[in-house]
Amino acid sequence: MKAARYYDNKDIRIEEVDAPTVVPGTVGIDVAWCGICGTDLHEYLEGPLFIPPHNHPHPISGESAPLTLGHEMSGVVYEVGEGVEGLAVGDHVVVEPYIISDDVDTGADSKDYHLSKDMNFIGLGGGGGGLGEKIVVKARWAHKIDKKVPLDQAALIEPLTVGAHAVERSDVKEGDLAIIGGAGPIGLLTAAVLKAKGVTVVMSELSPLRREKALETGVADYAFDPRETDVVAEVRKLSRDGKGADVAFEATSVQVVLDTLMDAVRPTGVIVVISIWSKRSDFDMHKLVMKEIDLRGTIAYVNNHPETIKMVEEGKVNLEPFITGKIGLDGLVDEGFDTLINRNETAVKILVSPSGAGL
Amino acid sequence: MKAARYYDNKDIRIEEVDAPTVVPGTVGIDVAWCGICGTDLHEYLEGPLFIPPHNHPHPISGESAPLTLGHEMSGVVYEVGEGVEGLAVGDHVVVEPYIISDDVDTGADSKDYHLSKDMNFIGLGGGGGGLGEKIVVKARWAHKIDKKVPLDQAALIEPLTVGAHAVERSDVKEGDLAIIGGAGPIGLLTAAVLKAKGVTVVMSELSPLRREKALETGVADYAFDPRETDVVAEVRKLSRDGKGADVAFEATSVQVVLDTLMDAVRPTGVIVVISIWSKRSDFDMHKLVMKEIDLRGTIAYVNNHPETIKMVEEGKVNLEPFITGKIGLDGLVDEGFDTLINRNETAVKILVSPSGAGL
Repeated sequence: MKAARYYDNKDIRIEEVDAPTVVPGTVGIDVAWCGICGTDLHEYLEGPLFIPPHNHPHPISGESAPLTLGHEMSGVVYEVGEGVEGLAVGDHVVVEPYIISDDVDTGADSKDYHLSKDMNFIGLGGGGGGLGEKIVVKARWAHKIDKKVPLDQAALIEPLTVGAHAVERSDVKEGDLAIIGGAGPIGLLTAAVLKAKGVTVVMSELSPLRREKALETGVADYAFDPRETDVVAEVRKLSRDGKGADVAFEATSVQVVLDTLMDAVRPTGVIVVISIWSKRSDFDMHKLVMKEIDLRGTIAYVNNHPETIKMVEEGKVNLEPFITGKIGLDGLVDEGFDTLINRNETAVKILVSPSGAGL
Repeated sequence: MKAARYYDNKDIRIEEVDAPTVVPGTVGIDVAWCGICGTDLHEYLEGPLFIPPHNHPHPISGESAPLTLGHEMSGVVYEVGEGVEGLAVGDHVVVEPYIISDDVDTGADSKDYHLSKDMNFIGLGGGGGGLGEKIVVKARWAHKIDKKVPLDQAALIEPLTVGAHAVERSDVKEGDLAIIGGAGPIGLLTAAVLKAKGVTVVMSELSPLRREKALETGVADYAFDPRETDVVAEVRKLSRDGKGADVAFEATSVQVVLDTLMDAVRPTGVIVVISIWSKRSDFDMHKLVMKEIDLRGTIAYVNNHPETIKMVEEGKVNLEPFITGKIGLDGLVDEGFDTLINRNETAVKILVSPSGAGL
């Protein structure tokens, strides 16, 4: 079968590899669609980061580069391993792409399996990837999804679930006011979850195209250019008592954006940081103290897939407008990565059909 | 009557002033004891900070320096104003020393009156102070306390309540493991509240005298010198699953202490910042994200006095060992401030008897 293999930064090869084998406790999935994630771009440009470098096997997967990429996938079950319950051949599924040690409790009540030692992601740390025609994953990580949800949209459930977990971390309530700094894919999908929960959403974003996307998809009620608009003043005006937003989401890893959010939230407000900061923050601790702000980190998801899938199945989130491109595996670098790196304002999510069947 | 009046930094004068007048809605209190707070020292050394400078009247109190100092006070009601219920002449009280605008909801359900616009403190922003023989406060801010609690210990209820609010902000539970960075007065009193709630307390503190105080008062289960002990490793060893402390309290405003706490808390752990940071923090945002840490600011208290008073009345916290000195008003600078500034390891709380009656 064909797969996109990561050798090193700027060295991704579309190769013929052996199809994976279904063993007890796993399911085999024909990948329908796999999204390209910002993390994949970072691996391509500056990696390996999450990816274990050649000859440095990951402690859980035992694998190292070259590895198959791709962790935002949907597909159809083609084989069910011994002992697997609740999944059948022909089921549509999305993958919660975790590589987690067997001795970690990944039960439905766990709140921290995603923070366990040496955690990595399928499609980065080993375990095959969604940028290959077939993948075999532990049944624990395959979530069934109703066939009425198109498989292309289903591939966006993974990043949507990142947003859902961030929203869960914020403790936001229906009727609250939220501000999101940054309308990239994760900012937009976080907004989509907030709207589904009845939250008023303000976005602060430099790019006019991204602001337009936020407004035309209906995930933002307001989208401001922080160079032209006093975002803090606008948010205060929109808040129920003039004190500011109830919650904020930092999705840029840019210091000035964080500073704006610190001013835009009300006293006792919550700021959730979703972005990956490659350097330390010049953080206004005095303001955190004097406003009793809660600054909360969030990474990936933990037991959030069932709720997110339900949200999509019930039509509370429409993922269709966030698909801005569909390509085959051979176009991964030239059409996919290149667009996202050099013309990223025009793109939200580019989907890849590894077999080409979806194109 | 005599009072300690703040004119400017390094200029505090013990003067004869008019006694305040009881008006409707207020009570008159003969101050028994008033503690010297770290904030008072900052005002003395580097102020005015909270104190409105001469000819710059505070928007709510209308007062400016010179002002009477002191906000950690206990006393006996000598007069009750018209319309005041639930307080009588002879009652022992402590003061929740707030200056808050009349249009702010300060009801028992409010969670943010302490964060309201222009909030200041009695004894800093006007309204008289505990370092005067008498004070008149709105009945809302006078909390009755059982006479079995000695009035000297009662004067420590104000800083204890700072600790109680910090503990409330942490959402700590009985049986949890907490680490406190810094065993100054607020660190020790926060520890006292934690112990009263059945939490295991680890302190990290440079001063051997302070570590000794933490251990001999029983508020800390362990007290480590971070120069000699790998505090993070010890905390992990003490935790139920080796992952680290459930909650942490930053009571030093020192960067390296915060960094230690970031490592010492478990994934999903909570760090409460109690200290006042005079400069920005060089903050490890990546760690906050990847461990899903909650960083929470806390300032003063909001509806925490009733619970704290009950804790002391029931004997769950013994404040006696934290009183390390008793002086008269004339010794305020030489015996009080000077000891706390130059020999602060030996002192926790120095109490002042404004009338001298307690000495």
